[in-house]
Amino acid sequence: MKLTILGCFSASPSKNSFPSAQILEIGGNNFLIDCGEGTQIQLRRCGIKLNSIEHIFISHLHGDHFFGLPGLISTFRLLGRSKPLNIYGPKGIKQAITLMLKLGDSWTNYELRFNELEDLKSIKLLENNKFSVYTIPLNHRIYTNGFLFKEKKNEKKLLVDIALKLKIDKTQFNGIKMGKDGVLSNGDIIKNSKLTEPKPNDIIYAYCSDTCYYPKIIDLINECDILYHESTFLDKHIELANRTKHSTAKQAAEIARLANVKKLILGHFSSRYNNLNDFQSQAQEVFNNVELASDGKVFYF
Amino acid sequence: MKLTILGCFSASPSKNSFPSAQILEIGGNNFLIDCGEGTQIQLRRCGIKLNSIEHIFISHLHGDHFFGLPGLISTFRLLGRSKPLNIYGPKGIKQAITLMLKLGDSWTNYELRFNELEDLKSIKLLENNKFSVYTIPLNHRIYTNGFLFKEKKNEKKLLVDIALKLKIDKTQFNGIKMGKDGVLSNGDIIKNSKLTEPKPNDIIYAYCSDTCYYPKIIDLINECDILYHESTFLDKHIELANRTKHSTAKQAAEIARLANVKKLILGHFSSRYNNLNDFQSQAQEVFNNVELASDGKVFYF
Repeated sequence: MKLTILGCFSASPSKNSFPSAQILEIGGNNFLIDCGEGTQIQLRRCGIKLNSIEHIFISHLHGDHFFGLPGLISTFRLLGRSKPLNIYGPKGIKQAITLMLKLGDSWTNYELRFNELEDLKSIKLLENNKFSVYTIPLNHRIYTNGFLFKEKKNEKKLLVDIALKLKIDKTQFNGIKMGKDGVLSNGDIIKNSKLTEPKPNDIIYAYCSDTCYYPKIIDLINECDILYHESTFLDKHIELANRTKHSTAKQAAEIARLANVKKLILGHFSSRYNNLNDFQSQAQEVFNNVELASDGKVFYF
Repeated sequence: MKLTILGCFSASPSKNSFPSAQILEIGGNNFLIDCGEGTQIQLRRCGIKLNSIEHIFISHLHGDHFFGLPGLISTFRLLGRSKPLNIYGPKGIKQAITLMLKLGDSWTNYELRFNELEDLKSIKLLENNKFSVYTIPLNHRIYTNGFLFKEKKNEKKLLVDIALKLKIDKTQFNGIKMGKDGVLSNGDIIKNSKLTEPKPNDIIYAYCSDTCYYPKIIDLINECDILYHESTFLDKHIELANRTKHSTAKQAAEIARLANVKKLILGHFSSRYNNLNDFQSQAQEVFNNVELASDGKVFYF
């Protein structure tokens, strides 16, 4: 997977910081997660082809997570898009987008497929043989979902040196990766287990923004590879975090620790802080493997 | 007047160009004219205090002229605004903004005063002793208004040297500027016309975007100081201009010539052109005093 942070600040876009939006790439598919104002500017700055986006996931209907969507949809139209666009987001998103387009008499020349969400339990949004996507119900001031992305690892790793030494024909390699035994030119069978390493685990990315400290999500995100968790505030503003149903850096780290995730990425920083280093140090009091998001930063995992 | 171009490109924001938005300052009042996506970013880059904006004028409901408005309104709320905000725009704008805020349960803590426009003739939107604002009905694919701003010059220019020579008391100066005669210490009257130059003309700025070539506006904008006129296309795309109800640079210049304006500013450039110099040269075949808008550029007049 490749994660590109387009914007990782709370509230409003400013001169040098953008609100929530990110691109997750899984096997050539670019998923857009949230779409704050200016997302299309950031997509261009980060060199992401707009036409590569087929699925957009909106966590909730606060402006800093979806006010960039009407503009992006309009731009797709201007670029001559013909393939459908799938939008997953809270109930109401269809009415909002439809009204904004209708007022400008600007219907799209491609299909908009809205998938409006109301469920309070995790549901599967999308699945094929390469990946699956699920909601992570969060606890914020309005109805909000995070999203869990699984990249399926269907292929075993071929032990190429052994296969070549045994003179197994290369045409068999794909079949062996999928679990077949090898066949020598004399007809002898080589067991698959001697030619491959076990199938690696699926790679799992969990996006959790916006939410207060909410341990109910732990079962869903348990042992995921990467957890992106909002941390709007530092410790000294914990009262404000409670009141606005946001999290502190330390609370995000506590979720990461309890869920035993491999790595935590912090984001959704309040613009009141000039120095973000304290987010990392406060989180690391609880959980060690912490990185801070920043606009334009790319993570590979 | 001081005009700051925040964005002057058509269609969608890109890495380095923003859609329509500009700030016109008249005597300390900042008027925001159109509000494409990213306007709040540009306001900050141009050092304009957000709280100084009390009136927003939206020409029409295509995204590149108003998709920045919901975000700006939300940011005003986050900044703790308490004074009312006046929004002038086509019918439907209230429903759109209200819905976007309602979905996020994000009511403003200040008053939003919507002035929805439906008139097909020019109407007065605003007037006080310093300025007045009128609509300029345009001809585009959907209902569209330009806006005419008049800065009133209420004071005559005092001939200070003469007044001082005559030993007229300085406490009379403001009255003389407003038209009163001067009084000497011996009671003699000095006629106002001997102490002042005639009142200068009002300064007039006309904003015309988006529109096809539409000579009906000429009476309204006649002899204005500055005309900002859209010029989405160059000559070679005149068919496209006709079909989409936009103007070419030469058509904008023809309007400027017929209306005998002092200066023409071209803007709303299609992003298909890498070099904008042709806009100026094609316009200057018809009308000489032409400047090109660019994002961040400031004009004083």
